[in-house]
Amino acid sequence: MTPRPAADLLIVGASELVTCAGAAPAAGAAQGDAGVVERGAVAAREGRIVWVGPESQLERSVAPLGSARRIDVGGRAVLPALVDCHTHLVWAGDRTGEFARRLAGASYAEIAAEGGGILSTVEAVRAAPRERLARDARARMERMARWGTTGFEIKSGYGLSTAAELELLRAARDAAAGTPWLTSRTFLGAHTLPREARGSAAARARYVDLVIEEMIPAVVDERLARFCDVFIDEHAFTVDEARRVLDAGLAAGLTPKVHAAQLAPDAGVRLAAELGAVSVDHLEFATDDDLDALAEAGAVGVLLPGATLFLRMERFADGRRMIARGVPVAVATDVNPGSCPSESLPLMMQLACLRCGLSVDEAIVAATKNAAVAAGLADDLGSIEPGKRCHLLVLDAASRTELLYALGSLRTHRVITGASSAVPRGAPISDRDVFM
Amino acid sequence: MTPRPAADLLIVGASELVTCAGAAPAAGAAQGDAGVVERGAVAAREGRIVWVGPESQLERSVAPLGSARRIDVGGRAVLPALVDCHTHLVWAGDRTGEFARRLAGASYAEIAAEGGGILSTVEAVRAAPRERLARDARARMERMARWGTTGFEIKSGYGLSTAAELELLRAARDAAAGTPWLTSRTFLGAHTLPREARGSAAARARYVDLVIEEMIPAVVDERLARFCDVFIDEHAFTVDEARRVLDAGLAAGLTPKVHAAQLAPDAGVRLAAELGAVSVDHLEFATDDDLDALAEAGAVGVLLPGATLFLRMERFADGRRMIARGVPVAVATDVNPGSCPSESLPLMMQLACLRCGLSVDEAIVAATKNAAVAAGLADDLGSIEPGKRCHLLVLDAASRTELLYALGSLRTHRVITGASSAVPRGAPISDRDVFM
Repeated sequence: MTPRPAADLLIVGASELVTCAGAAPAAGAAQGDAGVVERGAVAAREGRIVWVGPESQLERSVAPLGSARRIDVGGRAVLPALVDCHTHLVWAGDRTGEFARRLAGASYAEIAAEGGGILSTVEAVRAAPRERLARDARARMERMARWGTTGFEIKSGYGLSTAAELELLRAARDAAAGTPWLTSRTFLGAHTLPREARGSAAARARYVDLVIEEMIPAVVDERLARFCDVFIDEHAFTVDEARRVLDAGLAAGLTPKVHAAQLAPDAGVRLAAELGAVSVDHLEFATDDDLDALAEAGAVGVLLPGATLFLRMERFADGRRMIARGVPVAVATDVNPGSCPSESLPLMMQLACLRCGLSVDEAIVAATKNAAVAAGLADDLGSIEPGKRCHLLVLDAASRTELLYALGSLRTHRVITGASSAVPRGAPISDRDVFM
Repeated sequence: MTPRPAADLLIVGASELVTCAGAAPAAGAAQGDAGVVERGAVAAREGRIVWVGPESQLERSVAPLGSARRIDVGGRAVLPALVDCHTHLVWAGDRTGEFARRLAGASYAEIAAEGGGILSTVEAVRAAPRERLARDARARMERMARWGTTGFEIKSGYGLSTAAELELLRAARDAAAGTPWLTSRTFLGAHTLPREARGSAAARARYVDLVIEEMIPAVVDERLARFCDVFIDEHAFTVDEARRVLDAGLAAGLTPKVHAAQLAPDAGVRLAAELGAVSVDHLEFATDDDLDALAEAGAVGVLLPGATLFLRMERFADGRRMIARGVPVAVATDVNPGSCPSESLPLMMQLACLRCGLSVDEAIVAATKNAAVAAGLADDLGSIEPGKRCHLLVLDAASRTELLYALGSLRTHRVITGASSAVPRGAPISDRDVFM
């Protein structure tokens, strides 16, 4: 008989436990099911899950320590805490006025002429002290955690100089320090061309060289990022430029990610597949050939339907087709000041259902298991299974479906990060049930 | 010199005060502006506003009582609390399973055959005790108030028998009792045909007669509703049936409202204009002639973009065109278990901007001043001006634009209902700052 694992935290009383456990997405695999355990229970020790199963088997399966804490969730549904695998959540400046102007009919060119657009964010980020960037990012994470998110991928890309990109990534690192949230960082120096690189082809080429020769080595030297991303688009970087940047990142140890096919089809999706990108994000205009390449490569396709809605575009990414062709699908907020300032990952999941063709369980897997893979956080988050962190979203409802059904409504009862005994007493945030 | 009004509540520290004050919508009037007072302050007494103006003039304009309470909102934007002018928020039963089936591709006929659809709600409402209906509705209002809503129009239409319609309306009345929220009630016996009326033309005619001859007199006798509404649609009631019902309601003192042109153009919009309806709701397929008739009649056009999104329809109502043709536009959640279970009026306002063509200030007016008119609550709510209730939404932002910009995010700092001195101490809800 296997010895029963010791536990310092027991979660009981769940109507259903949505584990999302099982194999990570792989070439040609289906989206996977949500792995629901009716009346399931969880046991954890020092913040990590040690046992998952039907509550009826809890007593004979786990040995609670004398100090163990027992949380009865009162007949509610329990899911893995959500993972937001595509965010730009470190920024400064205010683009609400630009939004109002856009609604009133101003063109992108007019807004840029008025000092708006992404370059206004770059200017504000360059001028902001790191402490303020970190504080504002942390405030955003706090609000996002109310919706159930405890894992965040965070991109740079509003600095666009070596010094400013490094400062932004340091702010991203600092923002999560002392919190129970897990983050990964992505270097996105090739987000857009800075103003000083827009004058000529030579200036443009110098900027790409700077990204490759100065920024990537500095980022890697300071261990500030795990991924290297490029925005491939007519208004951003070409596929050839992306290849150079991603190759340089790979050589330095940064795994590729790509923004591709957002506004028109492009060869970026196949480039990402060829280079072994962990994810390709946007994909509104991906072709069947693109999707087949992604499926074969096992890359995660990331839906960002909030950007489609916020930019008032008609064409949402076709998540249904992605899944049908074997692409593991994730969904994320894309939170950023220009194209989607949304802090609600559940709203994105709802849009993935209502506009991208996902089912309820597919959307849940998309914001947990598959998102954790895309964010590089799958060792810790994304499912409820032994070895993972005990980060749980308790819904204020008996059925997981409520999270998708209750459009725009807040259905968080509680977020458990299971850190009670892992974090020393007296630490600034020791046991953070971020909501209720 | 006019004597300074006495006040028991002072609201100071606003970055901007969005009054929405001014004339109510009228024939051919523009949507109106938001009436912003920079650094504006508010004074109230016994729950009603007595003065509004620049904070710099507060001291010389108002005489605070010794017991006056002073709330400093710390540089935040202050708006009128929101009014939700189209809700079906009294219901029983659970249609999350039906939602999941629909996403998975089930047709409406399959769902109905499985026992889903609106008739499943009717069955559950008929079986539910009034106390449970009221308690669940109140819980919904509590959650909706987090988003800033303090005024609700509530429709019947899930009883579909005289007894059940009356019980639903009594539950709506009871749900708000003892709370600071204001409600109005609408009799919607002609929401859909009950199962027992679906067998034949004769049964259908008998149901319409029942609505006219039995339900309307009983509702009026018990003063349970102020409005009479009909769902005009191929799958609901014809324009001729609607005319009979609305005429009977008018004769009994109920002001008309209409659900029209949701799924196809129909003559319902013009009927509503002809009969002096206070609002016509949905309007996805309204023609220019329809809108001109509404503008001339001064009826409010109510956008329900959440239903368009939730039903996965392509065509949103064209709010821009409505305003251009002189129709005062409101926006509402339509909260109901089948076609839009959303509790977030701000999300609806955002969709009105992103999908229906409204500007920031137009969307604010749509969810405050114009919504109060459509809900019959304009004597009390919808603007910040002397005589109205002191119901205020304090945003967690310095600019009102943030409410529209922060897609799906919760931006409520605090909701003030100003009831502190109007409600006796010890009352169950005496001073309800519903959030934070």
